[in-house]
Amino acid sequence: MKYNTADTIVALATPMGAGALAVVRVSGPRALPIVNECLKKPIPAQSHQAHFRHFYRADDTLLDQVVVLFFKAPASYTGEDVVEISSHNNPLIVKGIIERLTRAGARLAEPGEFTYRAYLNGKMDLTQAEAVAEVIAARTQQSLTHSLRHLTGALRQRIEEIQQQVLKYLALLEINLDFSEEEIEVLPPEELQRQLESTIQQLDRLRASYAYGRLLDEGIRLLFVGRPNVGKSSLLNRVIGEDRAIVSEVPGTTRDYIEAPAQLDGLLIRAVDTAGVRVTPDRLEAMGIERTLQQAQRADVIAMVFEAPKAPEAEDVYLKQLAGEWRQSTRHVLGVLNKIDQGEARGWHAFLRDLQVPVVRVSAKTGEGMAAFREALLELFADERAYESEGVVVTSERHRRALEKALSALHSAKEGVKAGVSDEFLAADIRTALSALGEIVGETTPEDVLNHIFASFCIGK
Amino acid sequence: MKYNTADTIVALATPMGAGALAVVRVSGPRALPIVNECLKKPIPAQSHQAHFRHFYRADDTLLDQVVVLFFKAPASYTGEDVVEISSHNNPLIVKGIIERLTRAGARLAEPGEFTYRAYLNGKMDLTQAEAVAEVIAARTQQSLTHSLRHLTGALRQRIEEIQQQVLKYLALLEINLDFSEEEIEVLPPEELQRQLESTIQQLDRLRASYAYGRLLDEGIRLLFVGRPNVGKSSLLNRVIGEDRAIVSEVPGTTRDYIEAPAQLDGLLIRAVDTAGVRVTPDRLEAMGIERTLQQAQRADVIAMVFEAPKAPEAEDVYLKQLAGEWRQSTRHVLGVLNKIDQGEARGWHAFLRDLQVPVVRVSAKTGEGMAAFREALLELFADERAYESEGVVVTSERHRRALEKALSALHSAKEGVKAGVSDEFLAADIRTALSALGEIVGETTPEDVLNHIFASFCIGK
Repeated sequence: MKYNTADTIVALATPMGAGALAVVRVSGPRALPIVNECLKKPIPAQSHQAHFRHFYRADDTLLDQVVVLFFKAPASYTGEDVVEISSHNNPLIVKGIIERLTRAGARLAEPGEFTYRAYLNGKMDLTQAEAVAEVIAARTQQSLTHSLRHLTGALRQRIEEIQQQVLKYLALLEINLDFSEEEIEVLPPEELQRQLESTIQQLDRLRASYAYGRLLDEGIRLLFVGRPNVGKSSLLNRVIGEDRAIVSEVPGTTRDYIEAPAQLDGLLIRAVDTAGVRVTPDRLEAMGIERTLQQAQRADVIAMVFEAPKAPEAEDVYLKQLAGEWRQSTRHVLGVLNKIDQGEARGWHAFLRDLQVPVVRVSAKTGEGMAAFREALLELFADERAYESEGVVVTSERHRRALEKALSALHSAKEGVKAGVSDEFLAADIRTALSALGEIVGETTPEDVLNHIFASFCIGK
Repeated sequence: MKYNTADTIVALATPMGAGALAVVRVSGPRALPIVNECLKKPIPAQSHQAHFRHFYRADDTLLDQVVVLFFKAPASYTGEDVVEISSHNNPLIVKGIIERLTRAGARLAEPGEFTYRAYLNGKMDLTQAEAVAEVIAARTQQSLTHSLRHLTGALRQRIEEIQQQVLKYLALLEINLDFSEEEIEVLPPEELQRQLESTIQQLDRLRASYAYGRLLDEGIRLLFVGRPNVGKSSLLNRVIGEDRAIVSEVPGTTRDYIEAPAQLDGLLIRAVDTAGVRVTPDRLEAMGIERTLQQAQRADVIAMVFEAPKAPEAEDVYLKQLAGEWRQSTRHVLGVLNKIDQGEARGWHAFLRDLQVPVVRVSAKTGEGMAAFREALLELFADERAYESEGVVVTSERHRRALEKALSALHSAKEGVKAGVSDEFLAADIRTALSALGEIVGETTPEDVLNHIFASFCIGK
């Protein structure tokens, strides 16, 4: 990492915006003397102790009344001496405090630098450090639950267990090598093959959980497509409306600043409305369809909405064609017959059957059928959700790639055992697998990867 | 106040938005047991001590790793037992923590309720409580400086000094009353009159400082008026541009969330652009002028911008008329001749002299003359700024009104002494003055005023 860890760093840890308190965090060998330079009455080096103090500018004028909290190394977030300063939440005060501290010798922290130091000082492994950003970014309960498991070290433990198994193979192979002249076989090849297969299965299950992890992370992009006035927006509001309210309602806070994604059974739903698809009869030219086609490229599910009380028309036939194309690609398609409270015209039954996709009949107005809609939506992701109850779910593409690498090396080792290749070659494969696993927890992670990971953090974490 | 102070209250104290940390604050008699109910390992009742803990949902699942900080009554912000919980900053976590605490018996805090309790418990007087909101809202250094003085009790002390003087008069009058039958005069009327006059002068100076206090609080609303393309926007950017950058640049933070008012010598400048004033020659009808006239009603300063390289035309004459009208009202008017880098056409010298307002010649393009513009702008507020160096400045309309009331009562007393009215009547005036002063510091403040004050606070403070 390019940063000098001998520096004492400072950053605002709390968000900007309307609120009562701001917390500025200082970490590094000189954290305490630097902060004390800004107080007339220094705080003692007692760890975990809070003190009420006046914080002064360099010209000795009062900047704010603050609470100063000291954490002595190694019993702190970063593993270094840490001081947290709680001030009144005013940008001028926060700016003043940070400027005063930099003048006293602190340096502005880079994004993720506090957590990077925690990782360097062994307060957490790399999976836990990555989980810090995950926990902050989690937008659904499920996502938060799995991130917290990573934060408390569940993924690290699972990887360590597998590392132990693989290390044992290496040790056994090396004993074999040592005793190779005596032709003593410590571990019979069949047994090694069997054990490797067991490790491969564990790794494979972990890697496969990424299908769900990705769903957790990215959510379901749900596109509503249909003719004008078939009720796409009402449906969208029905699907996300109630859940949006739940997410954004943090009691006792202003709602304005909360990003309000919708949750469906713990999954993030990003619902997108589209312009109504119109067809001019003479040339069968679809209006407003180009943008919809673009949006469909990025959608996970396309809900095609039709209007029950009116019989299918030319536009609907055109939409059916589109549905067929989308089915061919990897998009999920759902047929939605809306406004069933106004009755269903003839022709829809056969039309919808021909769509060859799951179909639900709903009324966005009365709410009828919406539960079935949500169920049908979730059912599309049954494969991924099978991993929902896993104790540990891989949520990071980086982890998935490293697992692939380890798996490929172990497969190669297993094939090698079968083919009777020499233990030296087997040991090389095993070492490749160990290195790949080490990348996940941060033992063998290349520096540029580390830089990339921490650079994506928010400042102050 | 309508709130039950026996309740234990909870609220998010930090802003919503992107950031690493969130702080939830709990205050009240049951703060510690309520928080401990959510931890598997309770924290001890040691004041000012921080503890790392796992915070659990009601169903015993982990909600977050947090730092819990306890302040034992009365050594806390509110004067009650207070617990602060620092969590990862995620709306789901914050919501979960607050919900769990309310389930355990806490109640959502009303706006300002923490500070209200601090006031009730004698941790601060009413001027200090009001200063908390001022400190958070301050948008310029000057404003912050005076708010901090209020926060540390400077206004309270000044009021108390005056209260002491007035109390002394009351005591003397009462001695006079007691000894009235013996016709012993403890304080000769001339001496009382002299002392009353001194107190009146002190109060008057304090009250007069509100002219500056209001300027601090509300800033200067600066309106740019002129024909199209005379450079109003460029001027506006020149005036506020650089200072805006200074205010919004809190090092080590994202800029996006900061409100960015401009500062000029510690004063807030709210600069407003207007539509260009156009005149249709045949009817001399001003286009786009109606809205400008409305905006002028609310402006403190109207900068009339003219274009130096083009000679004055019909529109300019119309603008000169407007300037005349505005001069008659209480608005300040500044004449600005822009684009002087392109030379000055004939006619401007006489034209601007006829305006009868201060005039500056500038080039928004090169920056020439901008310093003079700022100086001329500040010079318009020389009267108000004379109070800038006062130790204590009254910034609240409520305080000003109470001071007026006290002043009026003391004037009445002074006149009464002069006219030889009886001591009983004088004592009634003095008591009125005392009551008015008591309203400022919160001794005699009516409940509805208290409610109004604290209701304007943000939640969590």
